[in-house]
Amino acid sequence: MITLEKVFSLLLLFIPISIAAHFSHWGASVVFITACLGIIPLAAWMGTATEEIAVVLGPSLGGLLNATFGNATELIISLVALNAGLIDVVKASITGSIISNLLLVMGFSMLLGGLRYKEQEFQPVIAGVNASSMTLAVIAILLPTAMDYTSSGIDEATIQKLSIAVAVVLILVYGLTLLFSMKTHSYLYHVGLAELEPSELSEVNLAPDTATDEVNLPLWIGVLLGCTLLVAVESELLVDSLEVATSQLGLTTLFTGVILVPIIGNAAEHATAVTVAMKNKMDLSLGVAVGSSMQIALFVAPVLVLAGWITGQPMDLDFNPFELVAVAVAVLIANSISSDGKSNWLEGVLLLAAYVILALAFYFHPVITAIG
Amino acid sequence: MITLEKVFSLLLLFIPISIAAHFSHWGASVVFITACLGIIPLAAWMGTATEEIAVVLGPSLGGLLNATFGNATELIISLVALNAGLIDVVKASITGSIISNLLLVMGFSMLLGGLRYKEQEFQPVIAGVNASSMTLAVIAILLPTAMDYTSSGIDEATIQKLSIAVAVVLILVYGLTLLFSMKTHSYLYHVGLAELEPSELSEVNLAPDTATDEVNLPLWIGVLLGCTLLVAVESELLVDSLEVATSQLGLTTLFTGVILVPIIGNAAEHATAVTVAMKNKMDLSLGVAVGSSMQIALFVAPVLVLAGWITGQPMDLDFNPFELVAVAVAVLIANSISSDGKSNWLEGVLLLAAYVILALAFYFHPVITAIG
Amino acid sequence: MITLEKVFSLLLLFIPISIAAHFSHWGASVVFITACLGIIPLAAWMGTATEEIAVVLGPSLGGLLNATFGNATELIISLVALNAGLIDVVKASITGSIISNLLLVMGFSMLLGGLRYKEQEFQPVIAGVNASSMTLAVIAILLPTAMDYTSSGIDEATIQKLSIAVAVVLILVYGLTLLFSMKTHSYLYHVGLAELEPSELSEVNLAPDTATDEVNLPLWIGVLLGCTLLVAVESELLVDSLEVATSQLGLTTLFTGVILVPIIGNAAEHATAVTVAMKNKMDLSLGVAVGSSMQIALFVAPVLVLAGWITGQPMDLDFNPFELVAVAVAVLIANSISSDGKSNWLEGVLLLAAYVILALAFYFHPVITAIG
Repeated sequence: MITLEKVFSLLLLFIPISIAAHFSHWGASVVFITACLGIIPLAAWMGTATEEIAVVLGPSLGGLLNATFGNATELIISLVALNAGLIDVVKASITGSIISNLLLVMGFSMLLGGLRYKEQEFQPVIAGVNASSMTLAVIAILLPTAMDYTSSGIDEATIQKLSIAVAVVLILVYGLTLLFSMKTHSYLYHVGLAELEPSELSEVNLAPDTATDEVNLPLWIGVLLGCTLLVAVESELLVDSLEVATSQLGLTTLFTGVILVPIIGNAAEHATAVTVAMKNKMDLSLGVAVGSSMQIALFVAPVLVLAGWITGQPMDLDFNPFELVAVAVAVLIANSISSDGKSNWLEGVLLLAAYVILALAFYFHPVITAIG
Repeated sequence: MITLEKVFSLLLLFIPISIAAHFSHWGASVVFITACLGIIPLAAWMGTATEEIAVVLGPSLGGLLNATFGNATELIISLVALNAGLIDVVKASITGSIISNLLLVMGFSMLLGGLRYKEQEFQPVIAGVNASSMTLAVIAILLPTAMDYTSSGIDEATIQKLSIAVAVVLILVYGLTLLFSMKTHSYLYHVGLAELEPSELSEVNLAPDTATDEVNLPLWIGVLLGCTLLVAVESELLVDSLEVATSQLGLTTLFTGVILVPIIGNAAEHATAVTVAMKNKMDLSLGVAVGSSMQIALFVAPVLVLAGWITGQPMDLDFNPFELVAVAVAVLIANSISSDGKSNWLEGVLLLAAYVILALAFYFHPVITAIG
Repeated sequence: MITLEKVFSLLLLFIPISIAAHFSHWGASVVFITACLGIIPLAAWMGTATEEIAVVLGPSLGGLLNATFGNATELIISLVALNAGLIDVVKASITGSIISNLLLVMGFSMLLGGLRYKEQEFQPVIAGVNASSMTLAVIAILLPTAMDYTSSGIDEATIQKLSIAVAVVLILVYGLTLLFSMKTHSYLYHVGLAELEPSELSEVNLAPDTATDEVNLPLWIGVLLGCTLLVAVESELLVDSLEVATSQLGLTTLFTGVILVPIIGNAAEHATAVTVAMKNKMDLSLGVAVGSSMQIALFVAPVLVLAGWITGQPMDLDFNPFELVAVAVAVLIANSISSDGKSNWLEGVLLLAAYVILALAFYFHPVITAIG
């Protein structure tokens, strides 16, 4: 039987292949594609290692670790791209991650879950808090764009200052949402997780089944550090080859950033969300999808703004206006569908259709050069 | 007593009058107004014929027939206008149909129903699915506009290609919504219809009361074909006289397309929705209003794009940006009002007020020439 | 103990100080700041006088009085500013009042209430009607802006005519919402108020505790007229010194209108809403916050348009496009948070964060001159 674990193990082979392709000059496209494929299993292993370590650290520290390292792959790819000056790719991958989590991941979860179960339910209170947090986050990261677009004669320095101020507010809000979900209102979130039996997590967890007290902490810390290093290496290859490869493949950097990069960075989470949805654990499934978008909007994006500011890269929250439209659209339809606490296959189809239409629009969108 | 049937029968007189006006050269305004009035009863008879034939065909095939011919009048008017090159009128009547169904029809239903009953209820699950489908549909048909508006230097060919791709996705989604409502989740929809007694439909059905097995199939097929032919003839008169007549009446083609044409094409549905709302059958009433907008957005609009592509007319989904604003506004307030599964007269007033304000805005909107 | 009453009484001292500052030429900044501080207690006393008189007049006439004089302070400041030709400040204070009521007042109420009570509840039906009314109102007052922004070549006279027509529709809708809440569906609203014990209102009411039949009507009418006069005097000082003072303080008139003026005009309502929220009377708290925004959008804004038209000032509903974005954002997130009829501290934080981010954006927004 082909399991997710076997697929992820096989994909590990692309790590040495991508390195060989780079040093043997097999062409940018080969390096780009193999680096993409090599990152997917690394992201999955990083997720597993983070969860194993979190179990040992206990709910509070462990939750914090998950909340910080949950999107580590995307953060690393983005930091490497930021360092290389590919600001537009970094920005595009932020909006793309939000869109793909809300539409692609949630869509597949509701569709495949809905083909098995006529109607699936989830906690509307959490859905409501998540929807409001997402709305705020998206408003916040897109406000500088709206300001630039609706007014003439705003200089870059002003947008930069506003972006930094917004980034600080968002990181504070992120901290407070963690306080809410892990401390003051944690009981709301336990309902969903309590339904899970340990065996059910194993399918999406690459670690062998062991009792909590047997977790080999040094091993998993080693795995986490090793994977982080390898993701950084693969990200260098990916970013180096990106511009030449995408133009060879006939793609724009906008399409690459919004559609391709987020699929690679989120592949492991996609698998998790869909797998648990098919077991009718919609709370967990939506938690992964929406939680990941929230983390991108409230934590990864502001960290990238601050990182750009510190390293002198002109990274701000002034996106392409069409990205603003796309993210607003994604949040609007995801909120509309999740607000009643129920889902069915048609709602999954609607989310996927929205994703396909946005992807088509980004595909047809005129070329934008990567550097400024 | 003046019944709807008598009014509709009297309006049939305008068919020969409009033809006479055309051949005797009584002026464009007379032809335009009489053709408008002549189309109204034809649309009502087409609706009745479709329903009678659907009864004989049974729920599946009959449902499909209703889903395809439900907006036949608008489709015919639009195809004739498309053939005459009045692309802006066609586009305006698409957005206008969505707006008038969501605001004018739903508004009158909730207001007049709410004057009789303090609080009216309807199925929130269906309302939710409908709201999400409408949101998707509107996003889809307006995305090319948003792309054109937010980016400079997009050529028409790209917008055309994107519009065709979006049209194909929408027709697929429409097929799946039919599968959902007629097959996999039909039980959700039966609740509303089961409440209806046969006699209650008769008021909005021009056919004599007969048992199902007595339906005269050849007769109704003849009525449907005859009416289709007459609608096509009247549409020719209407489209031919439209530009001269509207400029004589001091109206822009935008106002005519967004406000006048949809009222004519939807008059029969307006009557149905309001009549059943006054009998406290809000599920059916909203089903007619929202169902009709969904059909326009998911079926009629994409069919027109494909028809324009085949016949070489430059029909795409690139609307006037203010139409985008108007449709977004209509969906937003209609979803806000219908999301709780309850309605009262004030909510009807709010919808009607939104319609009046939009109509005022379109009335004051600067002239746009019909052809390009 | 420092009570709200004592603070309000002390602030009264700023009335003579501001007048002295004006005549002794202590500088525009001193006049501006002291006039701002002097208006705060006057607004509180006007609110108290209105409520006392309303008690004597009975529910219908009293409700009407409250509905007309509830935002009297803002109306007076705006009329004085309108008369002085500071159209942009008037417009900015309209959008600012909506934003500050929905985000700042509701945010503090949910946060401070939520720190005492884990979860607070309120009537979702009223929340729904309010949300829909707010959505309509905001759509209506922002439609002229959207029309101007999306079309080129619209002349001012057209925008003016559209604004007047919209204003008339809005005042009619406002009248109908009063009919709904005070006559046909008043039972919905009594639930919230019935929970209140008389003593609980006393904390936000500056009048001594007396039985209804002991209300000294002539006294309170005198207080109301006196305060109205003093507010008008202070508004003159504030408006006269506004342009020089704000430029001395390094602020734009946009920031002053959107952020500063609404905080001053609404200070008393802020105190009321937060105080009752901390007593777990969320229905009343949200009623004050949302009710005040509705009154601004459905009554104060249209009255100002009509006043401008009568006095020949070019006051219309064509706002700065970024104000449109800000108000849309405020309504979106406030509706998202209040739609489930429950609140917690995190939702308060999200509203406040949205306010802070918008305030930052207005702070960094490039200068706009006050007169045209």
